[in-house]
Amino acid sequence: MTVDRLLPDQDAKDLIELTRDIADKELARRVDEHERAETYPEGLFATLGAAGLLGLPYPEEFGGGGQPYEVYLQVIEELAARWAAVAVATSVHTLACFPVAAYGTAEQRERWLPDMLAGRIVGGYSLSEPQAGSDAGALTCRAERTEAGDYRITGNKAWITHGGIADFYALFARTGDRISCFLAPGAAEGLTFGRPEEKMGLHAVPTTSAHWDGAVIDGDRLIGEEGQGLQIAFSALDSGRLGIAACAVGLAQAALDEAVAYAKERQTFGKRIIDHQGLGFLLADMAAGVDSARATYLDAARRRDAGLDYGRQASVAKLVATDTAMKVTTDAVQVFGGYGYTREFRVERYMREAKIMQIFEGTNQIQRLVISRHLAK
Amino acid sequence: MTVDRLLPDQDAKDLIELTRDIADKELARRVDEHERAETYPEGLFATLGAAGLLGLPYPEEFGGGGQPYEVYLQVIEELAARWAAVAVATSVHTLACFPVAAYGTAEQRERWLPDMLAGRIVGGYSLSEPQAGSDAGALTCRAERTEAGDYRITGNKAWITHGGIADFYALFARTGDRISCFLAPGAAEGLTFGRPEEKMGLHAVPTTSAHWDGAVIDGDRLIGEEGQGLQIAFSALDSGRLGIAACAVGLAQAALDEAVAYAKERQTFGKRIIDHQGLGFLLADMAAGVDSARATYLDAARRRDAGLDYGRQASVAKLVATDTAMKVTTDAVQVFGGYGYTREFRVERYMREAKIMQIFEGTNQIQRLVISRHLAK
Amino acid sequence: MTVDRLLPDQDAKDLIELTRDIADKELARRVDEHERAETYPEGLFATLGAAGLLGLPYPEEFGGGGQPYEVYLQVIEELAARWAAVAVATSVHTLACFPVAAYGTAEQRERWLPDMLAGRIVGGYSLSEPQAGSDAGALTCRAERTEAGDYRITGNKAWITHGGIADFYALFARTGDRISCFLAPGAAEGLTFGRPEEKMGLHAVPTTSAHWDGAVIDGDRLIGEEGQGLQIAFSALDSGRLGIAACAVGLAQAALDEAVAYAKERQTFGKRIIDHQGLGFLLADMAAGVDSARATYLDAARRRDAGLDYGRQASVAKLVATDTAMKVTTDAVQVFGGYGYTREFRVERYMREAKIMQIFEGTNQIQRLVISRHLAK
Amino acid sequence: MTVDRLLPDQDAKDLIELTRDIADKELARRVDEHERAETYPEGLFATLGAAGLLGLPYPEEFGGGGQPYEVYLQVIEELAARWAAVAVATSVHTLACFPVAAYGTAEQRERWLPDMLAGRIVGGYSLSEPQAGSDAGALTCRAERTEAGDYRITGNKAWITHGGIADFYALFARTGDRISCFLAPGAAEGLTFGRPEEKMGLHAVPTTSAHWDGAVIDGDRLIGEEGQGLQIAFSALDSGRLGIAACAVGLAQAALDEAVAYAKERQTFGKRIIDHQGLGFLLADMAAGVDSARATYLDAARRRDAGLDYGRQASVAKLVATDTAMKVTTDAVQVFGGYGYTREFRVERYMREAKIMQIFEGTNQIQRLVISRHLAK
Repeated sequence: MTVDRLLPDQDAKDLIELTRDIADKELARRVDEHERAETYPEGLFATLGAAGLLGLPYPEEFGGGGQPYEVYLQVIEELAARWAAVAVATSVHTLACFPVAAYGTAEQRERWLPDMLAGRIVGGYSLSEPQAGSDAGALTCRAERTEAGDYRITGNKAWITHGGIADFYALFARTGDRISCFLAPGAAEGLTFGRPEEKMGLHAVPTTSAHWDGAVIDGDRLIGEEGQGLQIAFSALDSGRLGIAACAVGLAQAALDEAVAYAKERQTFGKRIIDHQGLGFLLADMAAGVDSARATYLDAARRRDAGLDYGRQASVAKLVATDTAMKVTTDAVQVFGGYGYTREFRVERYMREAKIMQIFEGTNQIQRLVISRHLAK
Repeated sequence: MTVDRLLPDQDAKDLIELTRDIADKELARRVDEHERAETYPEGLFATLGAAGLLGLPYPEEFGGGGQPYEVYLQVIEELAARWAAVAVATSVHTLACFPVAAYGTAEQRERWLPDMLAGRIVGGYSLSEPQAGSDAGALTCRAERTEAGDYRITGNKAWITHGGIADFYALFARTGDRISCFLAPGAAEGLTFGRPEEKMGLHAVPTTSAHWDGAVIDGDRLIGEEGQGLQIAFSALDSGRLGIAACAVGLAQAALDEAVAYAKERQTFGKRIIDHQGLGFLLADMAAGVDSARATYLDAARRRDAGLDYGRQASVAKLVATDTAMKVTTDAVQVFGGYGYTREFRVERYMREAKIMQIFEGTNQIQRLVISRHLAK
Repeated sequence: MTVDRLLPDQDAKDLIELTRDIADKELARRVDEHERAETYPEGLFATLGAAGLLGLPYPEEFGGGGQPYEVYLQVIEELAARWAAVAVATSVHTLACFPVAAYGTAEQRERWLPDMLAGRIVGGYSLSEPQAGSDAGALTCRAERTEAGDYRITGNKAWITHGGIADFYALFARTGDRISCFLAPGAAEGLTFGRPEEKMGLHAVPTTSAHWDGAVIDGDRLIGEEGQGLQIAFSALDSGRLGIAACAVGLAQAALDEAVAYAKERQTFGKRIIDHQGLGFLLADMAAGVDSARATYLDAARRRDAGLDYGRQASVAKLVATDTAMKVTTDAVQVFGGYGYTREFRVERYMREAKIMQIFEGTNQIQRLVISRHLAK
Repeated sequence: MTVDRLLPDQDAKDLIELTRDIADKELARRVDEHERAETYPEGLFATLGAAGLLGLPYPEEFGGGGQPYEVYLQVIEELAARWAAVAVATSVHTLACFPVAAYGTAEQRERWLPDMLAGRIVGGYSLSEPQAGSDAGALTCRAERTEAGDYRITGNKAWITHGGIADFYALFARTGDRISCFLAPGAAEGLTFGRPEEKMGLHAVPTTSAHWDGAVIDGDRLIGEEGQGLQIAFSALDSGRLGIAACAVGLAQAALDEAVAYAKERQTFGKRIIDHQGLGFLLADMAAGVDSARATYLDAARRRDAGLDYGRQASVAKLVATDTAMKVTTDAVQVFGGYGYTREFRVERYMREAKIMQIFEGTNQIQRLVISRHLAK
C-alpha cells in the first residue's frame, strides 16, 4: 500500500517518487537474496549515491540535496520499507557526514564533502566501544599526537555499521582527558576489523568491531578542535535518532502492508480474516501505531527544519517509533499464524530486524533518560 | 509548562497567546469551584465568543475565525489544559455549527451563522439515543412533516452536552426511512430535558437527555435535503473526532505538567522523586505519549487543511489521543501517591475527566472499526 | 457470576459460602447508599466480627479463625467484590492485629487479641506521615518515655484508614534513633484527627490524619522491644500487600461480572455486544487478567502457608493485582459506553476505587523496587 | 537461578531434581550446537524416555509416571528453560499419547501405551492443514474405509512437530461428514513428508507437512468411534495448551535469568546496570510477568488435577504465558543491548523461540475467542 504522504512541495513529491522507483527496482528485487545469504549488496550504494540519495539533508553547494529533514526522513522511510539494512546504512552514512559538514573547515568540506554526499565514498560511524555503548564518557580509545602533528590511534571500537567496508569513519577518540573527532580513513596500517557480528537480522550490511593498533592518521583529519568530540557527537545524535525513527516507521509500514494484504486473502470460518473483528482491531491498532509514529518523527523533523529545539522530540520520536516497530512487526507475524514464523514470508524477517532499532543510537532506556532530564530542568 | 508549539504564522501565535491569556484569567480561575459544586459557569461562553473563540474554523465572512484546523485545534487544546468541560463544550458547539455552515442554504447561513460563530447563541449536538449510540442507523426519533410544512418531532435523545442550556441543537431525526438534520431551537413547546446525568467528571457542563413530545419546529429548520442527515452527521464526525483528540491532549498535558512540577518538589530517600530513575522513566513515557498524541492529531489536521483524505487519520488521532489521556492522567495520580487520590490536587479530577474521552464521539472500539474498514478496502 | 474457587477443604467452602451470604445481605444491600452519601456504615464491622470474619488468619485459641492465608484472602476477595472500602478496612484491621499477635507478650495477647479478633474493637494502622509514605526511615513522630514509664507521643500521622473511628491503632513512632511499635488507643487526651480526606473513592470509610500533641499512652502498650518497630512493620508489610492484592482482585471480578452481564444484554448492530468479537476479545483479556491476578496472589499465599519465602511473591501479587484492577475497571466502564460514565452503574465507582490500590501499602513503584532488590541479591 | 518451587510432596521434588540433572547434562550441553546447525538431537528422546519423562501424566500401569499435571508441567517448564524445542516436542508427544490413553480400547492401550510412555516410540500430532489451522471444521484430509476394513488416507497435513521423524501420529481425518482420529504409523506406503519449514526458531526439531497419497492404515488404528475425532481433539486441546503455557514460562524464566545475571555484571556510569532503577524496574516487571504466568498455569493445572472445569483457565494460561514469554524475551535482549542482538548470547535465540508460542496450539486470538465464549454462556 503506497503511503499517502503530506509533502511540502512538488519537488518533494518527485523525490519520493524517484525513491520508490529505485527502491522497487534495486532494493525490493535484491533484498531477500542478500538478507538470506548474508551477503553485501555490492554496487548498491553507488546506485543510491548516483541518484542523489546519500547526501539529501546537506547543502547543494557541496553536492547535497538541500532537503529539509521532513523530506529526507520520508526518503529513509521509503527505503526502509523495502530493505531496512540499506536504510539504516544510509542513515549512518548521512550521520557520518555530519561532523565534516557542521564542524569542518572550509578546506575540509571542499576536500571531502562532494565525494561523501555523492556516495562515491561511503561512511561509518565509530563512537561505541565494547565497554562503552550508551556511556560515551567511558571511551578509552586514544589518539596521541605525534611529533609530526599526526595522530596515532590505539584502542578498540565496536558495533560499527558498514565496518570494514566503509571508505571513511567518523571516529571518536580520547586526546588527553577529552574526546576528539576524526575523519578516519577506512584503510590504514594498524587498523583491522573483527569478523561481522552474527546478528538476529540486518544481515546484508556487516557490523564489526575495529582494532586500532597504533595506526597513524594525518593531522588534518581532526574535525573541529581537540576536545570538541563529545560536543560534535551529541549534536549529531539527535539527527541520527530521527534517522532511526524513520527506518523504524518504514519497517513497521512494510509489516503492516504485508499483514493487511494477507488478511484480505486468507479465509477462516468462511470469511476473510480481516473481517473477523478481533483481527480487524489488531490491524487497526497496528495502523494507528504506524500513523502515530510517523507523525511523531515528522513533528520533530519540522521543528528541526524550523530552527526550534528538537532534542526532546527526537528522543521521543526514536522511542515511540522503535517501540511501535517492535510491536507492529511482532503482531504482523501473528496475523500470518504459523506461516509468519517461516522465512517464506517477509514478516519473519521484519520482526528480527525491528529489535535492533530499540537498541542502537541510544537504547530506548537512554532515550527515556534524555526525556526525563529535559522534564527535570 | 508552556507548550512550545510549531505554528504556521504570527497570527496563529497571537491567537494562541490570546487563548492562554483568557484561559488563565477566565478558566483556570473558576474551574475548581464549578467542577466541585457542579455548577454551570454562567457567562463564560459569552466571554469566549466575544474573544472570537467559538467560530474559529469557519469563514470570516460570517464572523468565523477563518483558521485552519491545525490552529483551531491547538486553541481547543489550550482551553482543555485549563478546563476540559469548557473545551469539550466548545468543540461540541463548533460541531453543532457544521451542518448549517456546510449544508445550509445561503439564507440559512446568513440568518444563523453570525450569531452562532460569535457565540451569541451556543449549540449542542443531538444524534445519540438511549438505544443508539455508536449505531446511528438504529435511531428512532421521528420528524413528521405537518400539513403546514413544519416538522413534528417525537422521540428521545440522549447524551447531549449542554443539554437544556444550549440555544440550538443540531438534531438528527428520522423522516420516513431515512435520517434528516435540523437546526432545532433550544426551547419549544413539547421539548423537555432530563435532569443532568451524574457523571464521573466534566461536572460544570450538563449532559442530559431530551424528550420530544410532538414539538413542532419550522420547516425552514431542515438543513440539507430530507434524508441527507446521515451524510451530514458522518461528514461532521471526522472534524468532531479531531476536536476530542485535541481536548484529550490538552488534558493529558495538564496532568503531565502537574506531575512534573510535583516530582521536582517532592523528596523521598533524600532526593527529588523526578531524580529517581524509576519515576523519571514513568514521566518520560507520559511525555512521549503526550508529544506523540499531539503530533498525531496535528498530522490529521494538516491533511484536512490541505484537502487530503483524513478520515482514517481522524479516527487514529481520536483513538491514540484519548487512550493516551487515560493512561497519562492515571499515571499522574500515581506520581502524587496518596495525595493524588484526593481532591486537593487537580490530577484527581483529570483522571475522572479522561475516561469519557475514550467513549464519546464514537467509542474507541468504533474508531478501531472505522480504521479496520479503511484497511480492508 | 459466582467464582468457581479451588479450595482446600469443606470448611473453607463453608466459610466462603457464609461470606457470600453476609456480603450479599449486609454489604451489597448498603454499599450504594453509603458510598454515595459518604457515610460510615455503623454496626457493619460488628456484624462481620460476630460472623468471625475479622480475625481469620489468627490462632483459634485467641478467637481467631485459624485459617490459612489461601482461604483468608479469598474471603477478603469476596467482600471486596461487594464493597471495596469494607474489604480494605477489614484487611487493615487484620494487619493492625499483627503486631500484638506476632510480637506481643503472652499477657498482651490475652488482654487484647480476643476483642480484636472478634471485632469487638476495630483497628487502624498508623505508619505513614505527611512527608514519609514509602520512605519509612524518614518518620518523625516521636514517643518519649516518661518518668512513670509511659510514652508521650508527639507528631503527625497521615493516611489512616478508619482514622478517628478505630478503637486502636498499630502506631509506629521514633524512640530515640529508632522506631518502636505501640498499640495506641483510639481516644486519648492530646490525640486529634484531621477531617476525612476527600478521596476519589472508598467514601464510606474515612481516611484521616492524626495529630499527637503530647498524648500519653501506657508503657505496656509498647509491642516488642524499643527499636524493633521497623522490623515489625516490615514483617507485617508482606501480609498487608497480599490483603490489598485480594481486594484488588475482588474489585476487578465485580467489574468484570457487571461488564459481562451488560454485554450479554445490550444490543448494537443487531446482536449482543458480547458477540461482537472486538468487544468479546476485550472481555476475554479482562477475564484473563482477573484469573491470572487471582492465581498470583494465591500462589504467594500458599507459599506463606507452607512456610516458604514469599516476600518477592507478595510484592509481585500486589503489583500485578492492582495494575490489573485499574485496567479491568477502566475497561469495564468502556464496555458500558456513556452509561458507564454515570453513577447509575457501579462500574463508575469501581474505576474510582481501583486507583488507590496502586498506591497504598507501598506504591507499585515501591513494589518494583522490592522485586528488583530481590533479583539483585 | 533455580526456581524455588512449591511442590506437593517429596516425590515431586525428587522428580524436579532428576529433571534438572538431565536438563543440565543432556540439554544445556547440546542445545547451542543443534539449534545453530539446525540438526536433530539423535538419541535425546530415548534418554528422556528412559528417565521416565515422556509419559509423566499417564497411569503407572502402562508405564506412565502417574503424576498430576501440577508436577508434569513443572517438569516441562524445567526442560524448556534449557531447550525450548525439546520441551515443545515432549509436550507434543505427551499430547499424541492422549487419544489412545483416553479413548483407546483396553487392547489398544495395552498394545501401544507402554512403548509410547517409555519413549521407545515418539509421537507427533497431526490436526492442522494448510487451509485449516485454528478452524478444525474445515479439514479436508479424508480417511476412506476400504472393503478390508482398513482406511485409505488422502490429503495434506501441515505444521507437524517431529514430522518425518516421529514413530506415530495422532491423525485427524474426515470419514464421511465427520472427523475421526487415528493412530497412524510414521512410515507407510503413500505417506511422504515435506522438507522442514525454515522457521524463525526451534531449529533442532523439524516441523513439516505430510502428504497422504492413498496410504492405507489398519482398521484397528481408529481411536474411539468414527466421527468422534473432533471430540477427541477438543478434549486434548486443553491439556496441550497447558503444556505450551509451561514451555513459555520455562523459556521466559531462562531469559529472565540470563538478563539478571548480565545486569549484575555489566557496569555503566559507574554502577551495575541492575542498580540503575530504570533497568531494575524493567527486570522487576519481567520477573512479575514470569511469576504470574507460572501461577496462572499452575492454577489451571490444579483445577484439572482436582477434577474441576479448567477449559477457560487453560486458554487463559496459554494466552497469558505466551504473551508474557514474548514480552520477557524481547526485553531480555534489550537488557543486553547490542550484545543481545547477536548469537553470542542465548537471549537472541529465546526471543525467536517465543514467537511461535503465541501461535501454535491455537493462536492467542483463538484463545480469546474461547474465553469470550465461556463468558458469553
